Amino acid sequence: MEYRYLSGIASPADVKKLSDAELEELAREIRDKMINTVSKSGGHLASNLGVVELSIALHRVFNSPNDKIVWDVGHQCYAHKMLTGRFGEFDTLRAPGGISGFTRRYESEHDVFSGGHSSVALSAAYGIAQANKLKNKKDYVVAVVGDGAFTGGMVYEALNNAGHSGTGTKLIVILNDNDMSISKNVGALAKYFAMIRANPRYFRLKAKTEDVLNHIPVIGKKLAKAIFNLKTSLKNRIYKSTLFEDMGFRYMGPIDGHSIPTLTDALRGAVEANYPVLLHINTVKGKGYELAEKSPDAFHGISAFDVVSGEKKLGGRRFSDAFGSFITDAAEKDKRICCITAAMALGTGLRDFSEKFPSRFFDVGIAEQHAVTFASGLSRGGMLPVFAVYSTFLQRAYDQIIHDCAMQQLKIVFAVDRAGFVGDDGESHHGLFDAAFLNSIPDITVYSPSSFTELQNSFYKALYKTDGSVAVRYPRGVEPGLPEDYEYNGGDWQEYGDSGAENCIVTYGRCFSSACEAAKEIKNVKVVKLHRIKPVPKEAVFCAMKAKKIFFFEEGQRFGGIGETFADKLFKYGFSGVYKNTGVEGQFAQQDAVSGLLHAFKLDAAGMKEIVGES
Amino acid sequence: MEYRYLSGIASPADVKKLSDAELEELAREIRDKMINTVSKSGGHLASNLGVVELSIALHRVFNSPNDKIVWDVGHQCYAHKMLTGRFGEFDTLRAPGGISGFTRRYESEHDVFSGGHSSVALSAAYGIAQANKLKNKKDYVVAVVGDGAFTGGMVYEALNNAGHSGTGTKLIVILNDNDMSISKNVGALAKYFAMIRANPRYFRLKAKTEDVLNHIPVIGKKLAKAIFNLKTSLKNRIYKSTLFEDMGFRYMGPIDGHSIPTLTDALRGAVEANYPVLLHINTVKGKGYELAEKSPDAFHGISAFDVVSGEKKLGGRRFSDAFGSFITDAAEKDKRICCITAAMALGTGLRDFSEKFPSRFFDVGIAEQHAVTFASGLSRGGMLPVFAVYSTFLQRAYDQIIHDCAMQQLKIVFAVDRAGFVGDDGESHHGLFDAAFLNSIPDITVYSPSSFTELQNSFYKALYKTDGSVAVRYPRGVEPGLPEDYEYNGGDWQEYGDSGAENCIVTYGRCFSSACEAAKEIKNVKVVKLHRIKPVPKEAVFCAMKAKKIFFFEEGQRFGGIGETFADKLFKYGFSGVYKNTGVEGQFAQQDAVSGLLHAFKLDAAGMKEIVGES
Repeated sequence: MEYRYLSGIASPADVKKLSDAELEELAREIRDKMINTVSKSGGHLASNLGVVELSIALHRVFNSPNDKIVWDVGHQCYAHKMLTGRFGEFDTLRAPGGISGFTRRYESEHDVFSGGHSSVALSAAYGIAQANKLKNKKDYVVAVVGDGAFTGGMVYEALNNAGHSGTGTKLIVILNDNDMSISKNVGALAKYFAMIRANPRYFRLKAKTEDVLNHIPVIGKKLAKAIFNLKTSLKNRIYKSTLFEDMGFRYMGPIDGHSIPTLTDALRGAVEANYPVLLHINTVKGKGYELAEKSPDAFHGISAFDVVSGEKKLGGRRFSDAFGSFITDAAEKDKRICCITAAMALGTGLRDFSEKFPSRFFDVGIAEQHAVTFASGLSRGGMLPVFAVYSTFLQRAYDQIIHDCAMQQLKIVFAVDRAGFVGDDGESHHGLFDAAFLNSIPDITVYSPSSFTELQNSFYKALYKTDGSVAVRYPRGVEPGLPEDYEYNGGDWQEYGDSGAENCIVTYGRCFSSACEAAKEIKNVKVVKLHRIKPVPKEAVFCAMKAKKIFFFEEGQRFGGIGETFADKLFKYGFSGVYKNTGVEGQFAQQDAVSGLLHAFKLDAAGMKEIVGES
Repeated sequence: MEYRYLSGIASPADVKKLSDAELEELAREIRDKMINTVSKSGGHLASNLGVVELSIALHRVFNSPNDKIVWDVGHQCYAHKMLTGRFGEFDTLRAPGGISGFTRRYESEHDVFSGGHSSVALSAAYGIAQANKLKNKKDYVVAVVGDGAFTGGMVYEALNNAGHSGTGTKLIVILNDNDMSISKNVGALAKYFAMIRANPRYFRLKAKTEDVLNHIPVIGKKLAKAIFNLKTSLKNRIYKSTLFEDMGFRYMGPIDGHSIPTLTDALRGAVEANYPVLLHINTVKGKGYELAEKSPDAFHGISAFDVVSGEKKLGGRRFSDAFGSFITDAAEKDKRICCITAAMALGTGLRDFSEKFPSRFFDVGIAEQHAVTFASGLSRGGMLPVFAVYSTFLQRAYDQIIHDCAMQQLKIVFAVDRAGFVGDDGESHHGLFDAAFLNSIPDITVYSPSSFTELQNSFYKALYKTDGSVAVRYPRGVEPGLPEDYEYNGGDWQEYGDSGAENCIVTYGRCFSSACEAAKEIKNVKVVKLHRIKPVPKEAVFCAMKAKKIFFFEEGQRFGGIGETFADKLFKYGFSGVYKNTGVEGQFAQQDAVSGLLHAFKLDAAGMKEIVGES
């Protein structure tokens, strides 16, 4: 396809030059570019297809970067990137050093706030709006938030805070309602949104705002007629107030999120309110690509795929699948087992479980804090809750793990998926913190398996052989290669290689694979593999101490991590040799293939050989 | 006062034997006991005085511990404790080994869920209710949640999750609306609650529920008449739906929370609904003690006081005060400085600031997550935000510090108050995690001052001399004693004592005081004091390494803490002597005076002398 209009967009100013009809063409080109790029790079497709018209309308009405658009999560920013001078580089999407799949401050002045995690955009946008107010700037701030993100409590914290700020707060929240979060949206709020969708006349802008709109010229009148239909004002006497009005916002909508003219009018009207506005738009996830419209969850975050058939170029069985099989089997025998997910049933491998045991399966929405405390309640009520969650998202429930779980000595099993590098999603998604933050919490045990067999055994121990709460953490993707002469011993740690070697590599999780490879290629090196990383098994420390030089490798943050705890224990037990600790040292890791990241941080076999060799 | 009725309450069964009139007497006795006890022990007074009738009504209607009452925060559980067999021990409130000021699972089977942090009760209660459902138990679960806690997003996560569970979920949420959180409640929701209070007829139980109530005998009828006033059902055709109904709950109220008969009827009615119910009650914080009714925030969490005059037996100037003065002065000169609090303006010393700079002061409610991301937004908009927060509550924003602050290299200054032991509030409130969890986060600097002068200097450096985000952490209470021959050097670390000593104590924060004392009393010991604990100053490590034996003392979690980072660095720089690290090792600390806790964990001078002496 020739990108006639898209190739001419050097900045948002060029969007403003196009007519309605030309913008329709532009939307078609953007969709085409998205589908073709993502089919090669992988990425978020359905959510991006859903906001093409919205992105165009936003850059038509507002003047970015003076006006600031904050994309919640940021996984729907592809059209925004193409419209803000990044069309030329878009082929590098998610590649090392290329365009990020999320908003990134360092990438463009139009990426106001870096994204990745859900439900934070309104808080950030309100902060910027308050800063503008204090500086007497007239610029607008727009937060684009999906209906799924409204299952996260931070949105309400922000609504509550922003909703009382009133006149002069130049803040627009766009509720992008596609009736999906990542999979089908859940909870009472989803029902509520559905009700609004079904009864649009009930939910018109309130009289006061209509008055405001009547005092603005032409476009305001057009808007008032087109969207708010003043003739229904009589009916509006009995309309219901919406939740958002209860929170102090002016509510507009719901409107068609795929009509550029309607969106344009609505945004211009919202600006005139000079008040915090919530604009509710209806969009279709996957819009314009039939396969994605039919299966939006399959096209949420995807790997490369065939554009015609939609078939993915899949790898093999993942750790998530191994967990899913294990827990489904275990739940067959043990009726106490419940599984909880925060909107990640598919990703965490829980689809089978959810179908077999619907009454014991709880998708709580994008609400990790609630998930942990809810699990604590299940545990208190005599069940055996398992919370399956990505490492990067478990960060959000740090206090709940401390306060509602560990402090009360309740038993929850945490299935911590995507621990370690995740690859091309980049810095917001790597699971580099869980080992460190779990390390700081008393009365919790952490296992870090390197193979499916070890994963199963770890979960078995977590469920039945360990007091208190337990985390089992495992990497994204497939089993790493392990040497044929290695056999998992089922214990808390294990020695591999020549017991009398003078050099010892200590590691855990996926890095064990690299360690075995390195140990085979250098002389006089053994490996101590920690199956349980918290508490660190004392005997593993003693075993390592038989060597003269100890090298710890950790696919996680070095500060506060297990390698530092190991150092402390070496002093405790009187080790006086050399100890060298390698991890991700005080930085965020960028987007790259996992193998590339392991290499960059010297956590692959080559890196280990180099570090052991040079000492 | 003779406690005629109260002394006869051995368990909730005894509550059920009393008449309405006798229960009124019981309420009076409970209040008297509360006021007298708290005047000696300190504790939470206003909130406890507000729920005396509610506590009585709950134990009259429900059968604890089969039915489960979950108190949010748990700072309003005193009456509950007296009614569940703990009246006899109530004089030990908040004393070492005595009755906790919060609900504690290990204390009684009636304390269903340990409290301390806000907004979690509904999540826990819903978990228990689901467990009951799965086990076919008919028991009820009641969550008591203050209106202040509704500013925390977890409540919405839980409402959203519980609200779609529908018929058969035996869950009652009591919204205890006293128009206060800790100080005056803030935000849009507070306005909304005020509107409900002012328009009770608008907010009746919906028609469906009225039908349910019509089908239940006697007490239901009485209830319907007394509370829901069926005669107004015509008017109800135009009533508004409440936010809680939007979230899927049946809404009842608002009712008088100080009338035991009304509460009793309402609770019995709510049980009949067999559906998630939100019962809205109006109470007066401090009820029955005039001084507390007038100044509920002054009587929220208090130290010992005189019952007649209300005057507190105060200590001297606190670190919070020193911070408050500094930041108010700094904001006079620098118009970019904004202060943010999560409902803790008084406790964090921000009262003056809030009065002098109301437009730059933001009380966001009990919403630490939003507070951090909102601060990130302010920073993004060019302001210089300072978030003042207790260490224990900052735990709730761990991910926001990582994702919205550090990852974006935005500058926020964290004023981390109550770092270290806090004393008699016990395990849920000690600030023992901040050093460890901040340690794991890249691109953040942490200072830990030991004196007011150092605090001021640390904040100055944080605001103007340090790139990226900075935390300044300091203990609860007054300045610890420091030796006269010590003079703060204004740098990142400092040596104290004989530079050539063979033993070296390394420490930071409040423990430096104990270290100086210990160093004076044992021979051959110097002290290296870290002013900046992250990153650990390299020169401080080199200075310590001149000694043969190094002893690290840390008033915080040992695992993942600064002492372990120090160990790792000692190996890195080739130290081959003795290193001994002392901290809070993998446990929660109970309630006790700070001095008692420092002693118990060997972090006072005696403990240090013992540890250094025995090596």
